[in-house]
Amino acid sequence: MSKTRIFFNEVATRDGFQIEPEFIPTGTKVALVDALSGCGYAKIEVTSFTSPKAIPMLRDAEEVMGRIRRAPGVEYTVLVPNVRGAERALESKADELNLVMSTSETHNLANLRMPRDKSFASLSEVVRVVAGRTPINVSLSCAFGCPMEGDVPQHEVLAWGQRFADLGVRGLTICDTTGMAQPAQVARLCDEAQRRFPGLQLTLHFHNTRGMGLANVLAAVQSGIVRFDGSLGGLGGCPYAPGASGNIASEDAIHMLDAMGYDTGMDMDRLLRVARELPAIVGHEVPGQVAKAGPITQLHPVPAAVTELRAALSL
Amino acid sequence: MSKTRIFFNEVATRDGFQIEPEFIPTGTKVALVDALSGCGYAKIEVTSFTSPKAIPMLRDAEEVMGRIRRAPGVEYTVLVPNVRGAERALESKADELNLVMSTSETHNLANLRMPRDKSFASLSEVVRVVAGRTPINVSLSCAFGCPMEGDVPQHEVLAWGQRFADLGVRGLTICDTTGMAQPAQVARLCDEAQRRFPGLQLTLHFHNTRGMGLANVLAAVQSGIVRFDGSLGGLGGCPYAPGASGNIASEDAIHMLDAMGYDTGMDMDRLLRVARELPAIVGHEVPGQVAKAGPITQLHPVPAAVTELRAALSL
Repeated sequence: MSKTRIFFNEVATRDGFQIEPEFIPTGTKVALVDALSGCGYAKIEVTSFTSPKAIPMLRDAEEVMGRIRRAPGVEYTVLVPNVRGAERALESKADELNLVMSTSETHNLANLRMPRDKSFASLSEVVRVVAGRTPINVSLSCAFGCPMEGDVPQHEVLAWGQRFADLGVRGLTICDTTGMAQPAQVARLCDEAQRRFPGLQLTLHFHNTRGMGLANVLAAVQSGIVRFDGSLGGLGGCPYAPGASGNIASEDAIHMLDAMGYDTGMDMDRLLRVARELPAIVGHEVPGQVAKAGPITQLHPVPAAVTELRAALSL
Repeated sequence: MSKTRIFFNEVATRDGFQIEPEFIPTGTKVALVDALSGCGYAKIEVTSFTSPKAIPMLRDAEEVMGRIRRAPGVEYTVLVPNVRGAERALESKADELNLVMSTSETHNLANLRMPRDKSFASLSEVVRVVAGRTPINVSLSCAFGCPMEGDVPQHEVLAWGQRFADLGVRGLTICDTTGMAQPAQVARLCDEAQRRFPGLQLTLHFHNTRGMGLANVLAAVQSGIVRFDGSLGGLGGCPYAPGASGNIASEDAIHMLDAMGYDTGMDMDRLLRVARELPAIVGHEVPGQVAKAGPITQLHPVPAAVTELRAALSL
């Protein structure tokens, strides 16, 4: 039996960097994307074509996109908030445009400062403008719950997905934006989303805010999902939970799926080397665990005391 | 359909405290066990009747056992390394004795300084001495891999379990001592252990060293396992992986299973209050996530900017 292929999208340089307080130099961003390009990712979300005033960290989007080396087989995607951003993204030769809105009205108002209907209208306009020139993915935030509203009904999440499917987008990313998903809920939504959208690329985006990140990845792969977002080192905290983790660490999720026998296509040694450079890049520790503990395949030396004991006991 | 009942065993005051560098005062230990007794645990591993020289932290085992208030419905279990420890444990009126040996020869030599056969002979003697006066549980270390040897074959783990089952012990705890288990392996071993030992209480003990702790809990409950060890706050690091997490945080695992609809019997609010006292007790941060982020049921206030925006837009 051939192994199931899993496709990872690395979001550290966009979703992860976005909330870092200190500007990360353009050259460092380019070097990190280039290093990630050699690790086996299916996709890298490089940056965001948003207003430089809104997110100063990503004000160098054009320069980063212009300077990275494009590796064959890797898609370079970018976040795009509106038509202006889409035009900049097309000019930068992004392989995919990622649009985002929230399935929670309150979260959309808090995050994008407009009601969901207005977001949908604005993003529909982006889809029309792009008109088949570049594939479009739509990330639906708070699909497993809103930190302010609480439950977001599954049928509402699916209805928003349907509206974008009807516009002809290539994929949907179902996002657990603040780490509220639990595995039983993940299984239900993944089952139903795959039934409803058999022609779309479905990606799951989990946070580890309450420790359930990899349990939710497990529930999703068990349901048949093969595409995941991850953020190297678990970069990207959660503004609603100071001290808690944000995004799942790509390397931890990939390490688990590799160990389970999935074909992630990733070079784990190389990935861990890159992950171990992150604390120096961002100036603080990061939550990823495998970079600290080493993969399960990396054994520890037998202590001298054991060797002596074996000799003494003639074992 | 009635909810599946899950039984949690809290090991923070034994397994967690054991590796803390600063002695924790006896009164603090007693107060913590008493606080845990009110949280809904099925079992609490209070302390260890080992040599005070081997583990100075737990040199007050008798006093702690004598001073705790026994809550009805909670079993107070203790770790016992040998016949001398068993006699002390029986004297202290422990509800259960927990014996431990490793399924890996190298790990047993490193940790217990004797080969597995000698550990088995010594623990068999304990079972004979206790002779039905108190139930006995046996914890099998490294059941999902040894940090020095690597793979530990499933049939070997089951064979060690069988030898103890033949002696008439009440339960087996299958331990992922250094966080090497992955969910597919957990499902296989749990399936087979339940088939082989239908009459035994089977408990799973996971570490979160590589971020897979709750994914492994999920795989185990999916297989039908209903008993878990957990350590409040995730107390108890891993000597083989500095900086990495050790035991799964009880409150994170319980929070996930509660959210999924299992009946853990736990009072989550009370449990989180106790978990939030841990950093002051041990003098450092602990890995547990839910105590920092709050449970998924705890919503955040709607920001004033959203309320103003709603008013301005007549939403």
